[in-house]
Amino acid sequence: MKFTVAQLNYHIGNFTGNKDLICKAIRKAKAAGSDLIIFSELCIPGYPPLDLLDRLDFIEKCDHTVKEIAKECTGIAAIVGSPTINKKHEGKKLYNSALLLSEGKVIFSANKALLPTYDIFDEYRYFEPEKQFSVFLFKGIKLAITICEDLWDEQPFDNEFEKTRLYTVSPMEELARQNPDIIINIAASPFSYSKIEAKENIFISKAIKYKIPVISVNQTGANTELIFDGASIVVNEKGEVFNQLPFFEEAVETYTFENIKSGSIAKRDTKTDSISLIHKALVTGLRDYFTKTGLKSSIIGLSGGIDSAICLCLAVDALGNENVRALLMPSRYSSDHSVRDAITLADSLKVHYDIVNIEKPFRAFEEDLAPVFKGMNRDVTEENIQARIRAILLMAVSNKYGCIVLNTSNKSEAAVGYGTLYGDMAGGLSVIGDVYKTDVYRLAGFINRESEIIPENIIRKLPSAELRPDQFDTDSLPDYNILDLILYQYIELQKPASRIISEGAERDTVLKVIRMIDFNEYKRYQAPPVLRISSKAFGAGRRMPLVARY
Amino acid sequence: MKFTVAQLNYHIGNFTGNKDLICKAIRKAKAAGSDLIIFSELCIPGYPPLDLLDRLDFIEKCDHTVKEIAKECTGIAAIVGSPTINKKHEGKKLYNSALLLSEGKVIFSANKALLPTYDIFDEYRYFEPEKQFSVFLFKGIKLAITICEDLWDEQPFDNEFEKTRLYTVSPMEELARQNPDIIINIAASPFSYSKIEAKENIFISKAIKYKIPVISVNQTGANTELIFDGASIVVNEKGEVFNQLPFFEEAVETYTFENIKSGSIAKRDTKTDSISLIHKALVTGLRDYFTKTGLKSSIIGLSGGIDSAICLCLAVDALGNENVRALLMPSRYSSDHSVRDAITLADSLKVHYDIVNIEKPFRAFEEDLAPVFKGMNRDVTEENIQARIRAILLMAVSNKYGCIVLNTSNKSEAAVGYGTLYGDMAGGLSVIGDVYKTDVYRLAGFINRESEIIPENIIRKLPSAELRPDQFDTDSLPDYNILDLILYQYIELQKPASRIISEGAERDTVLKVIRMIDFNEYKRYQAPPVLRISSKAFGAGRRMPLVARY
Repeated sequence: MKFTVAQLNYHIGNFTGNKDLICKAIRKAKAAGSDLIIFSELCIPGYPPLDLLDRLDFIEKCDHTVKEIAKECTGIAAIVGSPTINKKHEGKKLYNSALLLSEGKVIFSANKALLPTYDIFDEYRYFEPEKQFSVFLFKGIKLAITICEDLWDEQPFDNEFEKTRLYTVSPMEELARQNPDIIINIAASPFSYSKIEAKENIFISKAIKYKIPVISVNQTGANTELIFDGASIVVNEKGEVFNQLPFFEEAVETYTFENIKSGSIAKRDTKTDSISLIHKALVTGLRDYFTKTGLKSSIIGLSGGIDSAICLCLAVDALGNENVRALLMPSRYSSDHSVRDAITLADSLKVHYDIVNIEKPFRAFEEDLAPVFKGMNRDVTEENIQARIRAILLMAVSNKYGCIVLNTSNKSEAAVGYGTLYGDMAGGLSVIGDVYKTDVYRLAGFINRESEIIPENIIRKLPSAELRPDQFDTDSLPDYNILDLILYQYIELQKPASRIISEGAERDTVLKVIRMIDFNEYKRYQAPPVLRISSKAFGAGRRMPLVARY
Repeated sequence: MKFTVAQLNYHIGNFTGNKDLICKAIRKAKAAGSDLIIFSELCIPGYPPLDLLDRLDFIEKCDHTVKEIAKECTGIAAIVGSPTINKKHEGKKLYNSALLLSEGKVIFSANKALLPTYDIFDEYRYFEPEKQFSVFLFKGIKLAITICEDLWDEQPFDNEFEKTRLYTVSPMEELARQNPDIIINIAASPFSYSKIEAKENIFISKAIKYKIPVISVNQTGANTELIFDGASIVVNEKGEVFNQLPFFEEAVETYTFENIKSGSIAKRDTKTDSISLIHKALVTGLRDYFTKTGLKSSIIGLSGGIDSAICLCLAVDALGNENVRALLMPSRYSSDHSVRDAITLADSLKVHYDIVNIEKPFRAFEEDLAPVFKGMNRDVTEENIQARIRAILLMAVSNKYGCIVLNTSNKSEAAVGYGTLYGDMAGGLSVIGDVYKTDVYRLAGFINRESEIIPENIIRKLPSAELRPDQFDTDSLPDYNILDLILYQYIELQKPASRIISEGAERDTVLKVIRMIDFNEYKRYQAPPVLRISSKAFGAGRRMPLVARY
């Protein structure tokens, strides 16, 4: 008896593309003599399909695609994930199902019981939770087929206020009573650098608890903000990792049941280096955004600072230097080194760049607004005008050449609102909007690990928006080391101010930072989608009321 | 025995403000000799608190506020809505509760069982559904206390694919077995012009089914996008509407139980005119956005077209003409009548306006970009530059004077992406982003019902973006009557293209329109919050994947 794990990169709503990917893997598994090939959760429509699930025609397309794939399953069975219609009179209209296909038919289906509805997940919006569970005897082996969260009946949360046991049922406990031989888990589990170990431990703990092996199949690739790490895992009945598939890459591998049950421990890096994974995640996220929207090229406003430098490197890695352009937009306040450093970087990456000085439109705006602003002092208004002129220039090149503006704001700036709406906050996709500034420096170190790709000068200079003479980030913000620690505790860990202070942070700084975060919800509401690498990114995973007074 | 219905306007997270409102109503009810005053769902934190519910300190503030209000309840009882902690080992951390307060204590609590998790609702994100139900004997009367959706165990959906019975339990069926004397329903039910009758019918049908009266208490006022219509209702045991509180206004009214049980039918408009309610909803939404963010004044880019004209009228109604400024930003492509009509309107509303011609910055951009665009033709790029220059000017005045830019895009434009990101799509709040163009004309008719406030010329002229010579909306879009009908069927009713075509719409037009809607998800992702008046507005109630190919 042989099992095949298929870790693939699906595209939401692209039924033909997904079917082709799946059928190709089935043929490969057949060639390897496999009996059962396992795909990931909702692989038919791609994950997350969101409100496309509200359309009957979309569900009919899923059904049709499943039938087409079932026809391919001759001499081999396959488990695929798809939404199916809840035929009962009551409840949500759909189930999130795992379907076992064999000889042209669906021979068994299991529905998801634990529907994650927190952070970026909205599964109860669409799906009815299953309440009945049964194992399936396949070629003499009893399969306990579960879907992602179904195994997460206990889980650690970053926010201490959350319960470890989020659900009142445990599908695996129910299935265990029927003495399964193996746990199969099909997942669509997005990457978060702080959850790598926790994820593995879920599977290891279940293998140990039930004394049977676990195969967990995750997808890879990205769909807009969500980057799926793959890293599908096979744990033997002793709770040892027999094998793990690569991070952020497609892979199809076949194992005998005997190996899965009691195969020896895999040789692998036990310490996963988070910064290298973050790097790979961001490159994957960028690449798939372009591949899946059918777009080819990008443009970045290159300031000579570290954020845009990092984004340029990531874009070149993801898209190739021929598909990345840079636009340098110096102003009367730009220091000499800004343009020089930006050019050095663009040259070293062999990226095409243009230089457009923003002085002329800036002066035009100043002159035109002079009568309206008569008698009023210069303030942040004039700084914002400069940032917005740059957005107009970037968007103009974007419109003319059909390239997408990549937003280069980091998470620290986005958190405290240190950015201009419709200015440097513009762009089709935020590349490092989930990366704190201190991690931006770690990324720079990683990129320069072998040779100086990013000029040292860019890394060493004091961060500045250069929107007025001698301006530095530290004029308005605490040192990034201090800032990021507060941000992490407030955003990821959701600790109240009082707790952050009692644990040692300086009171006034904490209160000021939190005020800035809360005040700037309105800016983030209009920000581009952010490639998510943490357990709490800005965007759909964090929903804050705009008019709150709290 | 007397009951008081308190229909108030709460502010999310403003515990002091909400407490003061509530205590004032309690004192009024006491003066009227009331025994029980009923407030609406989650009135303590305000609705919807969203992810503030993830913070323990926020929940502790709720608890504290409830205790303070309980102290006020001497000689009178009160039902308030608040999140409470689920003390069980398993499940979500909170309940959505109705708390009965009397003589300083919580003497009874009922938790919500049916947690709406669709459209704009995310309640299962935070709350554990209750599974046990009991009535409460209060001064000889058995109260069946339910929370909003708890009575909606059957409901009509606009999307035919949805089930009428969305839940597998019916709290009211359970409570009915305990022979209650009255149904109390505390709600936080946002306005939707298509749901007015359906909402009433829920309460009427329950009164008829269980042969007991129903009191439903809704809140009023707006929190960002959501506008709560109030319209709290008292239905007698025959299923007749004994009384209904006003739409979009606070009200506190006291009734005897005898009247509630079998009082005569209320005199009220049975045909509610949707356009007048939409008008009132939008004014409420605008006013509360400013009141609750603590902002006073607004600015609107006045083009001489109907959309910005309507927005200006609404803003003047909501904020007063002294808190509204207009900015006229003609270009080389503006027709003479544009500026003239805009001035006429601003003058008639006594709104301050400035005129800034965009020619100078436009020429500066053209000159600066000439080397980058060498050899390329003029296209949509130059149109977008103009729209974005206007956004810079509006945002500059906003920054300088501390006024908020009101976005004037309508729903038809937003749907098909007929607008410029960071240009005319900019603004702090979208006033008519949930109003189709054909309804914009109806609003104009309503505003002009007694005298010509909006110049007829603005209403009669052909819609044009005036971004190139002799440009009209109909160059790129179908006639708005045709367009809006397709949009409504696709967005609100979620019908597939095939169905819209088979029901009579022209095939190529339908396919083109739907392609435009789908293609422009990325623009709407970055749009400002939209005042919601329909059953399916753009924003949090409609979640679409950006990289989908479907």
